[in-house]
Amino acid sequence: MSKKEILEACQNRITPYIHRTPVLTSTAINDLVGASLFFKCENFQRMGAFKMRGATNAIMQLSDAQKQRGVVTHSSGNFAQAVSLAAKNLGISAEIVMPSNAPAVKQNAVIGYEGKITLCEPTLEARENAAQKIVADKGATFIHPSNDIDVIYGNATAAMELLEDQSELEILFAPIGGGGLIAGTALAAHFFGKNCSVIGAEPEEVNDAYRSLQSGKIEQNKSANTIADGLRTTLGTINFPIIQNYVDHIITVTEEQIIAAMKLIWERMKIIVEPSSAVALAAIIANKATFQNKKLGIIISGGNVDLKNLPF
Amino acid sequence: MSKKEILEACQNRITPYIHRTPVLTSTAINDLVGASLFFKCENFQRMGAFKMRGATNAIMQLSDAQKQRGVVTHSSGNFAQAVSLAAKNLGISAEIVMPSNAPAVKQNAVIGYEGKITLCEPTLEARENAAQKIVADKGATFIHPSNDIDVIYGNATAAMELLEDQSELEILFAPIGGGGLIAGTALAAHFFGKNCSVIGAEPEEVNDAYRSLQSGKIEQNKSANTIADGLRTTLGTINFPIIQNYVDHIITVTEEQIIAAMKLIWERMKIIVEPSSAVALAAIIANKATFQNKKLGIIISGGNVDLKNLPF
Repeated sequence: MSKKEILEACQNRITPYIHRTPVLTSTAINDLVGASLFFKCENFQRMGAFKMRGATNAIMQLSDAQKQRGVVTHSSGNFAQAVSLAAKNLGISAEIVMPSNAPAVKQNAVIGYEGKITLCEPTLEARENAAQKIVADKGATFIHPSNDIDVIYGNATAAMELLEDQSELEILFAPIGGGGLIAGTALAAHFFGKNCSVIGAEPEEVNDAYRSLQSGKIEQNKSANTIADGLRTTLGTINFPIIQNYVDHIITVTEEQIIAAMKLIWERMKIIVEPSSAVALAAIIANKATFQNKKLGIIISGGNVDLKNLPF
Repeated sequence: MSKKEILEACQNRITPYIHRTPVLTSTAINDLVGASLFFKCENFQRMGAFKMRGATNAIMQLSDAQKQRGVVTHSSGNFAQAVSLAAKNLGISAEIVMPSNAPAVKQNAVIGYEGKITLCEPTLEARENAAQKIVADKGATFIHPSNDIDVIYGNATAAMELLEDQSELEILFAPIGGGGLIAGTALAAHFFGKNCSVIGAEPEEVNDAYRSLQSGKIEQNKSANTIADGLRTTLGTINFPIIQNYVDHIITVTEEQIIAAMKLIWERMKIIVEPSSAVALAAIIANKATFQNKKLGIIISGGNVDLKNLPF
């Protein structure tokens, strides 16, 4: 199969298990930017984020024997919920390794989707060890939140749907954390867009992808000090080459710009989006002279926020 | 023209000036209630509320001579913004009487839509006097926020659109404040629904409509002590008989029930709605045994909230 056919097969495979999310527009934001923006609202996706797409595809691609032994991942965020719900929908057991300091609300969301939680120390090493132990003990298959080609293909379907609805988009924007969303978005734009380029948006505070594209090798973050909690992770070896090949460039933005863009989306569009979802709009606003009169697509990554802890 | 034809003409008239808002559903809320709920999202309407519909229709029904002399209303809430924007869209001047203690954010919204503000003392008498003075001095036409038949017809178009999208709805719900939305909704259900009944939802704290339906005459509120700030007003002489004829009954809910329903909509549907918009869902949840397996429509009235002052 060609890569285009692989992506089409992926879309057909996961469609029964996901929502086709709406594409919203805002006259007020269009006027502010001087361009036509189309927001693909994955905050309305099942469990509240695009992660449902990649998790569903990755689990569906397992062999029957693998499915029987279940899946495992480590995440304190949206991917924990996505794997739990996707596995539940497919009748498969899911084990989720979470740091012991993960908020109760996030643990309860996983439990609500029937994921089995293993708590560990809040370090990357402890997480990976705990996950590997479950793989060794139970033969469960580990699914990485972003550095997995089937997760990337699943994520690509958000942009594929957006390009079906708005085929004339000139530029697609997505935030960059682990790189799984931007890689999928870039593949979708390459194979299904009409000369549609892709720009990544990243917080200055965790600009590993920006620096990696410049240096040509995967760079590490020095801190995880951003409000965009979904973007604190680093690039992987599978998504980085896709980003090198298919992403035009990366724009970085400050924390203040992220919060202002998030507030604009809440107030003007009346939708609840995570800070990570505001990073792309922040990048557009900060460079709006470049994008005058263009048709721009934005992947709104998710809407799972703590309403008791808003930045405005 | 029959009343049905009047409503169809109204819909054709205002369509170019308003958004056709989406109808959203939530698997989680359907599961919780045990019914199928269809939310007509007027929080996505222009200026953020259904009021845009009634204001636009009322202004378009004026004679050319009246249009030249402009319009005036008194409101500190959504109707102030609705009249300002509707008038601006139609090239007509709008004067808005607001109490001097109206928050700056609400005054700025009116100014943003080019409405001219006259501040007055924060009493109903001062508001009415200030509006009447503008009528006398300038010959402007006064438009009431809810007790005006053209406003009611305009408001009806939200439910008309909902019934076009979901023709099999069994019950339509709307909140009751001044009565303009529920009256329009009831007319729409009567003339365009298939045996679709209408239930009003009202805060216990301002249950004038509930008591009015029981006594057969317009009752006054003893307090305005509800978080649902859009529902603090009382019924009018034009909408009350429509409510008597076409609304099945009214359910009242507590402040706690309103806040819990609002939080549910924010967390599960990822949309920003005003407290007033949560009153109907609160009424359904409090009486869910009655509505098992039914197809229910809810008019989400608006999404203009102060993000710095949330009840959760």
